[in-house]
Amino acid sequence: MTVPIIDALSRALPPNAVVTDPDLLAGYRRDSAALCESHLPLAAVLPVDEDQVRTTVRIAAEHRVPLVPQGALTGLSGAANAVAGGIVVNTRRMNRVLSIEPTDRLAVVQPGVTNQELRLAAAEYGLTYRPDPSSWESSTIGGNIATDAGGLCCVKYGVTRRFVRALRVVLADGRAAAVGRKTIKGVAGLSLAELFIGSEGTLGVITEATVALEPETDTPLTLAATFPDAASAGRAVTAVRAAGVVPSLFELLDRTVLRAIDKHARMGLGDAGALLIAQSDTGPHATAELRTIAGACHAAGAIDVVAAEDEAESEQLVQARRLAYPALEALGSPLVDDVAVPLSALARVIDHVESVAAARGLTIGVVGHAGDGNLHPTVIVDPNDPTTLASAHHAFEEIATHALGLGGTVTGEHGVGLLKVGLLEQELDPVAAELQRRVKEAFDPHYLLNPGKVLARP
Amino acid sequence: MTVPIIDALSRALPPNAVVTDPDLLAGYRRDSAALCESHLPLAAVLPVDEDQVRTTVRIAAEHRVPLVPQGALTGLSGAANAVAGGIVVNTRRMNRVLSIEPTDRLAVVQPGVTNQELRLAAAEYGLTYRPDPSSWESSTIGGNIATDAGGLCCVKYGVTRRFVRALRVVLADGRAAAVGRKTIKGVAGLSLAELFIGSEGTLGVITEATVALEPETDTPLTLAATFPDAASAGRAVTAVRAAGVVPSLFELLDRTVLRAIDKHARMGLGDAGALLIAQSDTGPHATAELRTIAGACHAAGAIDVVAAEDEAESEQLVQARRLAYPALEALGSPLVDDVAVPLSALARVIDHVESVAAARGLTIGVVGHAGDGNLHPTVIVDPNDPTTLASAHHAFEEIATHALGLGGTVTGEHGVGLLKVGLLEQELDPVAAELQRRVKEAFDPHYLLNPGKVLARP
Repeated sequence: MTVPIIDALSRALPPNAVVTDPDLLAGYRRDSAALCESHLPLAAVLPVDEDQVRTTVRIAAEHRVPLVPQGALTGLSGAANAVAGGIVVNTRRMNRVLSIEPTDRLAVVQPGVTNQELRLAAAEYGLTYRPDPSSWESSTIGGNIATDAGGLCCVKYGVTRRFVRALRVVLADGRAAAVGRKTIKGVAGLSLAELFIGSEGTLGVITEATVALEPETDTPLTLAATFPDAASAGRAVTAVRAAGVVPSLFELLDRTVLRAIDKHARMGLGDAGALLIAQSDTGPHATAELRTIAGACHAAGAIDVVAAEDEAESEQLVQARRLAYPALEALGSPLVDDVAVPLSALARVIDHVESVAAARGLTIGVVGHAGDGNLHPTVIVDPNDPTTLASAHHAFEEIATHALGLGGTVTGEHGVGLLKVGLLEQELDPVAAELQRRVKEAFDPHYLLNPGKVLARP
Repeated sequence: MTVPIIDALSRALPPNAVVTDPDLLAGYRRDSAALCESHLPLAAVLPVDEDQVRTTVRIAAEHRVPLVPQGALTGLSGAANAVAGGIVVNTRRMNRVLSIEPTDRLAVVQPGVTNQELRLAAAEYGLTYRPDPSSWESSTIGGNIATDAGGLCCVKYGVTRRFVRALRVVLADGRAAAVGRKTIKGVAGLSLAELFIGSEGTLGVITEATVALEPETDTPLTLAATFPDAASAGRAVTAVRAAGVVPSLFELLDRTVLRAIDKHARMGLGDAGALLIAQSDTGPHATAELRTIAGACHAAGAIDVVAAEDEAESEQLVQARRLAYPALEALGSPLVDDVAVPLSALARVIDHVESVAAARGLTIGVVGHAGDGNLHPTVIVDPNDPTTLASAHHAFEEIATHALGLGGTVTGEHGVGLLKVGLLEQELDPVAAELQRRVKEAFDPHYLLNPGKVLARP
């Protein structure tokens, strides 16, 4: 059987750019999300430059075949999952750092450069690329921008959006456009670059990015504080903020996660109701900042506060955070959720997650970027037991709906993808939902780019 | 003569909400830009709430009458100028601070609240609203957001965009929508709030804003450094950045401005080729930061560096910056332009402005937000001599075109408005220009909202 689009792609692109072998195609089927539908694509195109992306999108448009842009497939919402009868364009071979401009602190990169590769290239100039999603060693800059990736450092430095200056994108009709600018400030015209950031491949395929670099900072010092309950940890988070200190990392582990870590690695944390880990990267001022943070933790009712005096001690204190995921994995298959709420509502989310877990007989641990109100409730499921999967899915929905009621959002940093299309409809008012569709249709009237992601198809 | 839309507005709105007296209407004709066309509006509507905005926009849409949103009319690009046969909606009576949430550091305000009023309301909680356009005492939050206003502090704290979380907007068909969210992080759906920010009233009328507040900082300490020429001042700017210090203010005055100040106030600056003024607001660390900045200035070739040791000395050192505009005004009518370039190109812009001034026989001083590459070349004209006005307009175009060639933008913080519609077309690639129009038409298919601003009418 010949498939017309595959013939057309094969004629227009070099032989190694079009993958059709089903065994190989399986590797382009889905990202790292659980609970999301995926399909084997008709083909995976592996372009090396913008021209090949343009050719691919133009052919997909001519054949009215849906196209899903992909990076390293580390996403957690199914945004990069292949759709039925569609092709995927995977940008990982577009992996060149095109230039580093040290005086202006800019890097121009192809979308398939990994976050780690960009950092290494910037480090040669004493600079760094700040955004640090957990997947930074493998996830791509294109994917980071398409999802406006968060991470640990954003409590101090902001999310990916803050570091993006300009983009080149291939639109649904196969033409390329440049949006944004190189300068720090600029207000010339509608902010289309801002619109592409976080659009999860629904408006265009990113083919080049100009991003801001920053000087490398000192190795951070770490503080860890245990609390009797989530409420006192939540008070500590707002107290640290009120004290005018902005930690460079400010993470929270809840009771369930601490018990899992204790079981896994015996760190003596099993009695605590919550753990906060904070870092300061301000070099000579770090010790003073940690002292301020310690004071806020004590005042909020901390059981125990330990501040590292050197790098080795720091390393020990962040160990608990590093063990959170492996410890949860030791209990079963962890499904990571993602909500964000105003800081004042942090403790209420954690308490609510505990009640959902109890009511459904599930284990749900919460790991969170406490400093910016972004929590990852993580349900432990048995992948071989469909009832736990279904129950996890319902738990996610209950938690997200509850977060909405607290003035929160259904996704803080993982995106909507396929996983939260219905929840996004809950979050948006009906006029705003219609506006989202109007914008989508202005860019992609036939819903060829990543259809069914973010917005339900009309 | 009865005008149908005025009848309809008068029937639907309270009597004092619709201004039609030509003497009063003159006050709603234009913003603070020079060189821009304006017209007497048919009527000025002064709503007090979103309902009245909705009614007004709905009636304008029914009558296919263009509508221009206005705030305090402090803009410098004609974005708020009334258009022929249109009405204006001035939001200054929507001036209530609706809530301050100190724990979450949020303020919810109507669009007509001034930047100063919001700061005063936040100060009661030890918080502040950071963005500080020069017009902060009178400009409105709605106008600040519609233009993504910059200012002096953005070198450290960012522009208005960084502080906007959520908006309510009335769309071209008279419906209201909520966009954005209260949380620090969030990636649910396309970033429509980001798109409204800086859209200069072309996509909707902002009727409510949720913005982030921050703790008040210590009174800053100031440093002033003179340089023989723009090139050495430019080197100092990049050297300060390279030293890892981010001043809370980092301003530049060029030779022409220094001579004007000296003539005006005899400060002994007339021999210098450029002056940099930097501030640090880091309290106990401010003195150390200024020392680092001083070292970078000396290394770059400064003639003289003075760092304040206390508030009184600080006050004296910022005096030159404050006198820049009055000193230029003493020479004639100043027309303020606005471009931004990568930092490495700062000196080249200043040198180019000098050559444009010499070639055209004009006086053009440059005041600039040096730390973010945003410069305000200011032409002194004789308003009674149309040839100087025309010459100033040409000079603006030459300077903006040159900035584009250096990787810059035609407007760093004042916006496109009417003044730079042609220059925006120069900046955008043709596909991006078409995308801008497609987005505009998705929101406002009949070009009723602020027509002719930002984008040329098709």
